[in-house]
Amino acid sequence: MRLARLARAAPLLVRTAATAATADPAAAMKAGDALRSRRRRFTEDDVAAYAGVSGDRNPVHLDDAFARGAGGFQRGRVVHGMLVASLFPALIASHFPGAVYASQSLKFAAPVYVGDEVVAQVQALQIKAASGRHIVKFATKCFTDDDQTLAIDGEAMAFLPTLQLSTEAME
Amino acid sequence: MRLARLARAAPLLVRTAATAATADPAAAMKAGDALRSRRRRFTEDDVAAYAGVSGDRNPVHLDDAFARGAGGFQRGRVVHGMLVASLFPALIASHFPGAVYASQSLKFAAPVYVGDEVVAQVQALQIKAASGRHIVKFATKCFTDDDQTLAIDGEAMAFLPTLQLSTEAME
Repeated sequence: MRLARLARAAPLLVRTAATAATADPAAAMKAGDALRSRRRRFTEDDVAAYAGVSGDRNPVHLDDAFARGAGGFQRGRVVHGMLVASLFPALIASHFPGAVYASQSLKFAAPVYVGDEVVAQVQALQIKAASGRHIVKFATKCFTDDDQTLAIDGEAMAFLPTLQLSTEAME
Repeated sequence: MRLARLARAAPLLVRTAATAATADPAAAMKAGDALRSRRRRFTEDDVAAYAGVSGDRNPVHLDDAFARGAGGFQRGRVVHGMLVASLFPALIASHFPGAVYASQSLKFAAPVYVGDEVVAQVQALQIKAASGRHIVKFATKCFTDDDQTLAIDGEAMAFLPTLQLSTEAME
């Protein structure tokens, strides 16, 4: 597997074995290609800001004692799953500004605790032309524990204005 | 269809025809019951705050001219779909503090523009006991245009500590 660093914002384009032989990092995205985000930690302040804007003040996100007790989360407060999942459209939009989300499925497989380091990955599974745009089906995964634990698994469909990766990733 | 106002925070428990005959608003949630959120508008400030915490700075959310042009959104900037979708866990947690999300599917059926009024609705489809908790499958829908337009459709699975609705809805 070959890693190609893209732009200065450090997300990665990962070519899988199937496409590596002909891969050119400057070329358009192909089925099989994966994009990875920078490592990210959601802090207590991030969770509080998200609780404010979403209105989701579930105590499993805001109260360590509640999270450990009634919530059953050993290490205390967990990040809102939908906040962690926001990394997927953020990652796609950072490479394809103007991307429009059509769907997303999310399985919350393991908790992400406040302060945990996470990495998001999206891999193009299918690419089709669609009235001047491209509709792409992505496998979307988010990992913790240095990629050892799959925290969120799912798929997304997004309309992309181009398959050319932006040279100014905005992530 | 009967409407029963719950608590002072004004979300609604809607009993469907199938359960209305025996419905007691103070009783536990049953399959068929629906919860509706207050009406909510996501402002420019909300979208900016969410862009900050999620890292999703897609110009379709932040730049009116881009949204109208390349984005193809007639009325300009649209709210991040995942921010609108945060209304579902927020609504569930407001009635069932300590709820833990297991999965969510989301189909973004129509855009929500910055400033549009939206209402979220979750309806219990199936309820099963699960090791001292309850696992509930919800239909999750979000409407704009006074319920005329379905903006987001999908389903969620959540573990609830109890089926009794909180008397202090936190929404």
